[in-house]
Amino acid sequence: MTMKRTKTTLSIDPTKDTQLSDSAAIVSEKMQSEDRRQFIRRSAAGVAVLASPSLTHAAVPESWKIPGGDFSNYGLPHADQKNVIRWISQGRSVAGEGVSWTPLHDLEGTITPNGLHFERHHNGIPEIDSAQWEVALHGLVAKPLAFDLASLKRYPMTSRIAFIECGGNSNSLWHPNAVQAPVGYAHGLLSCSEWTGVKLSVLLEEAGIKPDARWLVADGLDSSGVTVSLPLDKVLDDTLVALYQNGEALRPSNGYPARLLVPGWEGIVNLKWLRSLQLTSSPLMSRFDTVSYTDLHKDGTFEMKVKSIITSMTPGATLPGAGFHEISGLAWTGNGRVAGVDISVDNGKTWMAATLQEPVLDKALTRFRLPWQWDGTATIVKSRAVDQNGQMQPTRDALLAEKGSSAYYHYNAIVAFSVESDGYVSHVYA
Amino acid sequence: MTMKRTKTTLSIDPTKDTQLSDSAAIVSEKMQSEDRRQFIRRSAAGVAVLASPSLTHAAVPESWKIPGGDFSNYGLPHADQKNVIRWISQGRSVAGEGVSWTPLHDLEGTITPNGLHFERHHNGIPEIDSAQWEVALHGLVAKPLAFDLASLKRYPMTSRIAFIECGGNSNSLWHPNAVQAPVGYAHGLLSCSEWTGVKLSVLLEEAGIKPDARWLVADGLDSSGVTVSLPLDKVLDDTLVALYQNGEALRPSNGYPARLLVPGWEGIVNLKWLRSLQLTSSPLMSRFDTVSYTDLHKDGTFEMKVKSIITSMTPGATLPGAGFHEISGLAWTGNGRVAGVDISVDNGKTWMAATLQEPVLDKALTRFRLPWQWDGTATIVKSRAVDQNGQMQPTRDALLAEKGSSAYYHYNAIVAFSVESDGYVSHVYA
Repeated sequence: MTMKRTKTTLSIDPTKDTQLSDSAAIVSEKMQSEDRRQFIRRSAAGVAVLASPSLTHAAVPESWKIPGGDFSNYGLPHADQKNVIRWISQGRSVAGEGVSWTPLHDLEGTITPNGLHFERHHNGIPEIDSAQWEVALHGLVAKPLAFDLASLKRYPMTSRIAFIECGGNSNSLWHPNAVQAPVGYAHGLLSCSEWTGVKLSVLLEEAGIKPDARWLVADGLDSSGVTVSLPLDKVLDDTLVALYQNGEALRPSNGYPARLLVPGWEGIVNLKWLRSLQLTSSPLMSRFDTVSYTDLHKDGTFEMKVKSIITSMTPGATLPGAGFHEISGLAWTGNGRVAGVDISVDNGKTWMAATLQEPVLDKALTRFRLPWQWDGTATIVKSRAVDQNGQMQPTRDALLAEKGSSAYYHYNAIVAFSVESDGYVSHVYA
Repeated sequence: MTMKRTKTTLSIDPTKDTQLSDSAAIVSEKMQSEDRRQFIRRSAAGVAVLASPSLTHAAVPESWKIPGGDFSNYGLPHADQKNVIRWISQGRSVAGEGVSWTPLHDLEGTITPNGLHFERHHNGIPEIDSAQWEVALHGLVAKPLAFDLASLKRYPMTSRIAFIECGGNSNSLWHPNAVQAPVGYAHGLLSCSEWTGVKLSVLLEEAGIKPDARWLVADGLDSSGVTVSLPLDKVLDDTLVALYQNGEALRPSNGYPARLLVPGWEGIVNLKWLRSLQLTSSPLMSRFDTVSYTDLHKDGTFEMKVKSIITSMTPGATLPGAGFHEISGLAWTGNGRVAGVDISVDNGKTWMAATLQEPVLDKALTRFRLPWQWDGTATIVKSRAVDQNGQMQPTRDALLAEKGSSAYYHYNAIVAFSVESDGYVSHVYA
């Protein structure tokens, strides 16, 4: 895979009259929206080139002379996007064990297209005959039930936009030296979709919950033996048996025919390829409840913590010259809604509030944006998110102080990018 | 293409103990949310089958015995979805002239996956070299400008979820006899995406709008000569130069590298493959401003009017037996937000308020849902939407009275489906 942007692909030629003449002062911390709009207008001016007569007048483009290409039953991206792909990191000792990453640095908005949703498989993608498939709901229920795909589709559905993040996302940042990787390759075990399915509470209502039930033990059809335990209150709150992702049936790599969606909780419990859902009085303490993923936070909570990452610049690439840049990225929290994102362009000395793209949804990715007039001097850029409960993304030092230096999961500290005077971007601990 | 569901594929066997025993009364018009929740619980009961010991206990599924399939750089749907495709209706006299339809009856939620976004091409899909591509902004501006893809990406971006509907969507319903077609094949020139791009107002601010500018004339790079005129106030309000669709770059069939998004207005003005944007004092009165698409509404407005369609049943398919069904579908308006959707299961004698899936967004598709306990007798089912301005979807008679019987565009009347006692669904004028 090659980097999309390199030092050699400056798209604005500094010898032409296309640079911003106004290297305006850094945006003030208290900038109001009207000021901001004017700032954007003033700052962006000059990026475009003057239109030539050939564009505005009589010239006839080649594509007007011949009919275009055919319709298709199912569309695919343009060949230009051949490098906008999931990057695969695969282990060597176990077949089908590894991850594929969402290329966050090449995407915009908040919805992840289905073809680019991240994957974490422990033993590959099982092939399931959906005509034979059933999921069992049993254990501490009045009446054990089984659902095939057709019967599940008869239940009342719920749609919601939600992120899923792997508990191991960003874990290269535990390393003592700052690893250089494009944003998606370091933080892209994170995707966001509109999920549709049946609330597990509806199915449990039908089965009848016995009084001593406290946990749900779920297992799937892949050969790695993933079994997870979920507290019943989370199951009854907002957990879905998801059948659809961004409108269409789940993809094979995302759990077809059915998976759990456990909004805001780490990826592993959003169990794919459902086989069995069993109510129990206590957690199973399976391998995936104990050895992997499930290090509780110090405060005893379990949700993915508030976090943000800038996506409009990415380590290894180069900003196309000084002047106006929109600093944009994604923020999220497993604990409700994102309340705000601050950006610093001076290594944390001062912070400015970014604009959050509406609607800001519960347990969904939120896009943030901030206009930035870069004066071309080397600096360090950071983002920090705060959620509706006032939880703020910690510094790396604070996270290490809490979790120790040999931790592996749930890295959510503030990320810093250095921008050199030539625009080259690196990941730094700062 | 074959129908996904036919009379022969009842997925619930009436000889088994899987039917709903309780053929409850029709939901009352004033049903409150708590009542509704209880109704859903009571009604849905019985769809599942009792779980067998083989599912709940020791049986080892085949997929546990072997590693699963490989990772992929870009995922695709499961082979089971081979018929969940855009259906193509192509003319014979002009190459690449026609439509492809979003299969709404096979989808859920509100987001259309990019591979299934509807298409309307007048002369095929132009192949564009994005490295050479520029769009010109000229005419009544202080400074004509040209933007290549790299420079457009430097401007401040905006993301929003919005539907696009072709002005000719649903036009088979102008026919004097009710045409039988699956929902997506009659109403699926309608899709909804999260679009990201640069507000045209930002670019115009830089170019400088001359005082006598009132219209924008836009043309594209395909060989059919599509040129459209847009009033400047709409352009300055919320029109985007869209670069991304559901996170990734526009697909070739949806305007790559850049298209207009004109939220709430008919498809044709959401011009694809942008070439030139010219400010003028009056509309061009091009072929696409006059002959095609642009019949104004009687009240002088131009937005797509409030509309809804049920997608959970589809002509030519058969409901899987009496009992509980969720009636679900999509509602939208080019004039703000959907305020409500009513469902009738007795051919319009009584109406019940469906639940709107949150968030209900401006000029976006809204999913509605209503629990229905079908007693197995033949009936007629309808949906009608009302928007935030109190505009209600008209009856077919009222629409014909307004537009005449030889109209072609902007069909938005209430649609009726008959359900026979065996569950067979037909499109009817009723």
